[in-house]
Amino acid sequence: MTNPASPAPIIRSLDALREMTRSWKAKGETIGVVPTMGALHDGHLSLARAARSATDRVIVTIFINPKQFNNPDDLKNYPRTEHEDARKLAPIGVDAIYVPDGAQMYPDGFSTKVSLDALTDVLCGAHRPGHFDGVATVVAKLLLQTSADQAFFGEKDYQQLLIVRRMALDLDICTTIVGCPTVREIDGLALSSRNLLLSDRARTTAPALSEVMEAITEGLAAGETMHNLVPLVLERLERAGFGEVDYLELRAASDLSLLDTPTEPARLFGAAWLAGVRLIDNVPV
Amino acid sequence: MTNPASPAPIIRSLDALREMTRSWKAKGETIGVVPTMGALHDGHLSLARAARSATDRVIVTIFINPKQFNNPDDLKNYPRTEHEDARKLAPIGVDAIYVPDGAQMYPDGFSTKVSLDALTDVLCGAHRPGHFDGVATVVAKLLLQTSADQAFFGEKDYQQLLIVRRMALDLDICTTIVGCPTVREIDGLALSSRNLLLSDRARTTAPALSEVMEAITEGLAAGETMHNLVPLVLERLERAGFGEVDYLELRAASDLSLLDTPTEPARLFGAAWLAGVRLIDNVPV
Repeated sequence: MTNPASPAPIIRSLDALREMTRSWKAKGETIGVVPTMGALHDGHLSLARAARSATDRVIVTIFINPKQFNNPDDLKNYPRTEHEDARKLAPIGVDAIYVPDGAQMYPDGFSTKVSLDALTDVLCGAHRPGHFDGVATVVAKLLLQTSADQAFFGEKDYQQLLIVRRMALDLDICTTIVGCPTVREIDGLALSSRNLLLSDRARTTAPALSEVMEAITEGLAAGETMHNLVPLVLERLERAGFGEVDYLELRAASDLSLLDTPTEPARLFGAAWLAGVRLIDNVPV
Repeated sequence: MTNPASPAPIIRSLDALREMTRSWKAKGETIGVVPTMGALHDGHLSLARAARSATDRVIVTIFINPKQFNNPDDLKNYPRTEHEDARKLAPIGVDAIYVPDGAQMYPDGFSTKVSLDALTDVLCGAHRPGHFDGVATVVAKLLLQTSADQAFFGEKDYQQLLIVRRMALDLDICTTIVGCPTVREIDGLALSSRNLLLSDRARTTAPALSEVMEAITEGLAAGETMHNLVPLVLERLERAGFGEVDYLELRAASDLSLLDTPTEPARLFGAAWLAGVRLIDNVPV
């Protein structure tokens, strides 16, 4: 609804946000929200565009959520680029950028945690203790703060997408969770704010992760098993310059149960360290 | 808004509930909710009356929440009196009685828990593991299902009241949590659905709990300490026929920190077993 040329207003207080959403709701307008931690790239922008075409009003939230960082250095180093983020959003014509601070989100005395006893103990959940509790808690808050009809999440963080969808359903939050395809660089690297942390040299190496995932997908299509394929590609990743591989697993797309061959709709998940940066990716199989 | 003489409709599905609340909201009407587990007594009815005078529309919910029972026998024996409950509510003129079943509240695959890392590890929380996680989870759901502007809870369950208020604030649920005074029998016994489980003889003994709490309150007013007062009244409870005393503690009214004398606004909390029934009570000091 905003003139695409004009920059969206930046809202920092929950009161101002609620005043705005109430006036939209009173007119019968629908609201889409795109929760982000800033450092926006084309992946985020594709979510904002999806929201723009699906709902009357679009809010992009930028909040680097301390509760989902299990590693203090990762939190400290996470890129902060608010001015640049606002500039990138301007051509899309979102209606508001909501940038709450920590005291707004977690005031003194804050005590509540939203957690899930399914979907959270594998993949990134196994390697980042507490991470998905932090995600579920902050997303519950953001959905309820924005009164969104639809919320847009990237399939890049597929486990997060399933967890958020389950949480919203379980808590009867009236927001439809919409998953959007991963956006990639021309060389296949999945877009991620963490890519900004890669050295030029590591950036050249990084596409090896999506390449080996592509190779596994082809192997599975040819009737091979994860059991046989994974050792081969682990060697390839190591040769390319990757460090530790957190996981490289085939899992059911519905409930993340572990598979050796794609006997049901499945996704291949990978997470590996490259020069101190943790990269993740996943593809449908 | 309902004719006080007519019985309120009983709603069993979330879809029907949402359709009703949406039509109310569209007219700008406010909604009050009284979450109960049924077996309604005058305490519950006082909450329904408080809601009736505060909001345009009143929903009483009846759901015996399995997640908040740490003891299967307690869940099995909990009184179920839906027909009688509806009859008692009729004169108050509530607008709907929402009675979801377990599959409606916790469908297959339900995985989410709302928990608090403060207020929950003392008093009833220490004696009923997981109880307040179950309360916080079901109340979050009921507030979001009913879209209530105000929710009414008895001070009888004072710890629950603080926990629910904290949870709603932390998760940005737009419901004001209203605490209402405990309703008592003429002999001082705090009304509780569990009183129905007392034998005639135990019922005669039961007021001893509120009597000793009154005695402690007077002792504190006279400058005595909990340290000195508690042993005396424990003996009195035992003589009266009470079994184990789970706690008898003075705590800050704001954050439940333990006190020996009322150096700040405080409440005295008691929980004790009588013939297999656990009775709780609390009074301001």
